[in-house]
Amino acid sequence: MKTFSETFLMENELAWEPAGEGMRRQIMGYDGQIMLVKVEFEEGAIGYEHSHYHSQTTYIVSGAFEFNVEGDKKVVRAGDGLYIAPNLLHGAKCIEAGVLIDVFSPMREDFIKD
Amino acid sequence: MKTFSETFLMENELAWEPAGEGMRRQIMGYDGQIMLVKVEFEEGAIGYEHSHYHSQTTYIVSGAFEFNVEGDKKVVRAGDGLYIAPNLLHGAKCIEAGVLIDVFSPMREDFIKD
Repeated sequence: MKTFSETFLMENELAWEPAGEGMRRQIMGYDGQIMLVKVEFEEGAIGYEHSHYHSQTTYIVSGAFEFNVEGDKKVVRAGDGLYIAPNLLHGAKCIEAGVLIDVFSPMREDFIKD
Repeated sequence: MKTFSETFLMENELAWEPAGEGMRRQIMGYDGQIMLVKVEFEEGAIGYEHSHYHSQTTYIVSGAFEFNVEGDKKVVRAGDGLYIAPNLLHGAKCIEAGVLIDVFSPMREDFIKD
């Protein structure tokens, strides 16, 4: 498994990977202790509730999303963000198509294929 | 020192802090092991070369920037990103006004005032 990325990550050179119905992602900068992932959502796409041991912080680049973090629901839009503590149950529904930046610490080993 | 942020970070509720000439920032989601910072640049603003022990990954939300990472220079635009390994000398010049997302691991203690 490769445990760090290139220095420069150009959108038009990175693979898009499927990330569930109506969603796709690009793995961007990472090493063992951090990983940044761009996730593009179609309107209506749902990131189902899940949890993980990683700390997560999210930035909304565009669109609008209804997040649910351990039962606490809020609509966030471009310019807003979230902090999701380890092991909290969280999910999101896309209410206007857009892009999220999800960043994890440590890296998401499960996102790396080789 | 507070070592974790709120869960929901709304752009219109967060303080903007000065971050050098022609730059300002909002501290967004963080805990001890991760911190996401939004940095807004005016055209021509310069993030002078510096280094730190934190791993950093950056996402370009808008605008265009010439980055220099240990002498390796490249122009990055909306949708692109970088990974900056610990202790590498890096800086950026804004060539079209825009916004960067910088994420650090561990958190930048030096960015927290109380």
